[in-house]
Amino acid sequence: MFAQAIRAKIEALIPRGFASWAQAARRWRRAVQSQGLSFAARRRFWQIFTAHAVEHPNREPAAADFDAFMALTREASADAAHGSVTLVGAGPGDPELLTLRAVRALQSADVILIDDLVAPGVLDFARREAKKMLVGKTGYRPSCRQDEINALMISFARAGKHVVRLKGGDPLIFGRAAEEIAACRAADIPVEVVPGISAAQGAAGRLGLSLTHRKVSRRVQYVTGHAADGRLPADIDWQSLADPAATTIVYMPGKTIRELAARAIAQGLAPDTPTLAIASATRPEEEIVRGTIADIAERLQEAAPSGPLLIMIGRALAEAGQSAAEADGSVEPTADGHPAAGRKQAS
Amino acid sequence: MFAQAIRAKIEALIPRGFASWAQAARRWRRAVQSQGLSFAARRRFWQIFTAHAVEHPNREPAAADFDAFMALTREASADAAHGSVTLVGAGPGDPELLTLRAVRALQSADVILIDDLVAPGVLDFARREAKKMLVGKTGYRPSCRQDEINALMISFARAGKHVVRLKGGDPLIFGRAAEEIAACRAADIPVEVVPGISAAQGAAGRLGLSLTHRKVSRRVQYVTGHAADGRLPADIDWQSLADPAATTIVYMPGKTIRELAARAIAQGLAPDTPTLAIASATRPEEEIVRGTIADIAERLQEAAPSGPLLIMIGRALAEAGQSAAEADGSVEPTADGHPAAGRKQAS
Repeated sequence: MFAQAIRAKIEALIPRGFASWAQAARRWRRAVQSQGLSFAARRRFWQIFTAHAVEHPNREPAAADFDAFMALTREASADAAHGSVTLVGAGPGDPELLTLRAVRALQSADVILIDDLVAPGVLDFARREAKKMLVGKTGYRPSCRQDEINALMISFARAGKHVVRLKGGDPLIFGRAAEEIAACRAADIPVEVVPGISAAQGAAGRLGLSLTHRKVSRRVQYVTGHAADGRLPADIDWQSLADPAATTIVYMPGKTIRELAARAIAQGLAPDTPTLAIASATRPEEEIVRGTIADIAERLQEAAPSGPLLIMIGRALAEAGQSAAEADGSVEPTADGHPAAGRKQAS
Repeated sequence: MFAQAIRAKIEALIPRGFASWAQAARRWRRAVQSQGLSFAARRRFWQIFTAHAVEHPNREPAAADFDAFMALTREASADAAHGSVTLVGAGPGDPELLTLRAVRALQSADVILIDDLVAPGVLDFARREAKKMLVGKTGYRPSCRQDEINALMISFARAGKHVVRLKGGDPLIFGRAAEEIAACRAADIPVEVVPGISAAQGAAGRLGLSLTHRKVSRRVQYVTGHAADGRLPADIDWQSLADPAATTIVYMPGKTIRELAARAIAQGLAPDTPTLAIASATRPEEEIVRGTIADIAERLQEAAPSGPLLIMIGRALAEAGQSAAEADGSVEPTADGHPAAGRKQAS
């Protein structure tokens, strides 16, 4: 069974039609060698071949493909001195929530620049030889500033390295991706983005909790809980936060949750609106604090969970409360030192 | 190189510490056989073992684990007659955007109930022996109603099957997941949810485009473009759509986009707010129509792209326009029949 499970995992990653591509690889080997390409260029040809085989496993490889791959190889070789940057979403924590494309990027990275919100298990997928650097804001070293991260990223790419910039959650949602993408483009470095499962999606998945509900919530919104100075952002649209038909997710609420809740209520949000605070979503140490918008700040202060925090507000969350009958507003550690074949939702 | 790439893929899925788990499997084999378990229960023991090994690859397996696995096996065996349901996010289309957990669920499914927004390539990862049923709203058969889908799902699970309910994007965002989860819980069927990359995240990833921007957008919101009757939902919070500091994603805009745009502008949204319409996000046939909130309805009518559509509105999108200098508001097909080692963003 263990062997079967491993085989299943392997099969999951190797598409059906690969046999004919493997045959083509054997046929084309000599032709590739006779093209007068450098070792690096030949390597690139087979990378292009592989990427294409992965993308179209069930197409028969044709002679035209050989020519197309060769043209791409020459083109790519001209660009190669630049290296590249791939922004990769590491997801909320559970390494199983990585996408296949994220795994592929980690496997082909020369350098990985790692955010402090990335769970350690994710790095198990990194290429062994890759240089791994923590550039986050916690840890023992002083935090890197954004412009230092940009400079580092670009200098590695200029040296011809394939740089993976690994960020917690989805880099495109509160991940400062805009600034890093702009820096790459300004430096004429090719940049790609691999989206990730956001912490809110991961947490909602664990809770078996839809963020929308046909009858009670037709709008989902993500907001940040604090600005650069650590206080509530000045431009929060309070009316949108008070909308009873929305599900609101507050990222990085920091110390602002009491004020945020008070202002949302003042703007008209019902004080009994269900509210969840989730720390370390999807990680073994995940903790959930349940309450209402009126009392969540109090409950959070009592429970004092550690790890990255997010807060979810909205009537759609009432179902989570019902389904987890054992939770009566108190801290509910979902950490399980115990083995489990798959987590079941409390019913 | 091709072989290396396959090896890399395999290694990506097999954690480092597996050797000691493989040794434990050999050691414990006889002990498992001597417990008087049924074949199905022994199978379950090794499933639990495997899930745990995958989750904690670098922990040394201990004797206490054996006892814990055995206890879980007996517990699971008592429940087994029920089967289970796993709601799985298939992502926007590109099969490489599946999570590892989604692949695992597809590999262990007995029955897969498939939504019409699921891209066909995703099913390459399904277990060969699984029964696959289309329950979407398009295709040659009349569409299944939600309560028929629920009934089907539950009847398979009651028959002891592991049912995967496969949905496009993220099941937790406009995926009607709340109703299916509630139906399972009411029927006392264990239900799990595997989140997926939403179409908006996939599309933004392809464009190399952050949905938030520290300076111009601190709020991201997802709304539906039509209600059950095909018209604009009555409860849209127009003020929240007119917020200049938000990025808004309209799912399933249907024929309502002209009215939606007009009302957002009437509410105060600047008519020149950058707006993108993306059809078939992340699929080979992806098409992007660029414009402003004032002219997007017109441009969409001209371009008439096919496939699932979403619309993104907001100042954060201006960067995408700048970066894709070749696109001057016209249709920009990103379909590439050409092989590519990895798509680069136009810079």
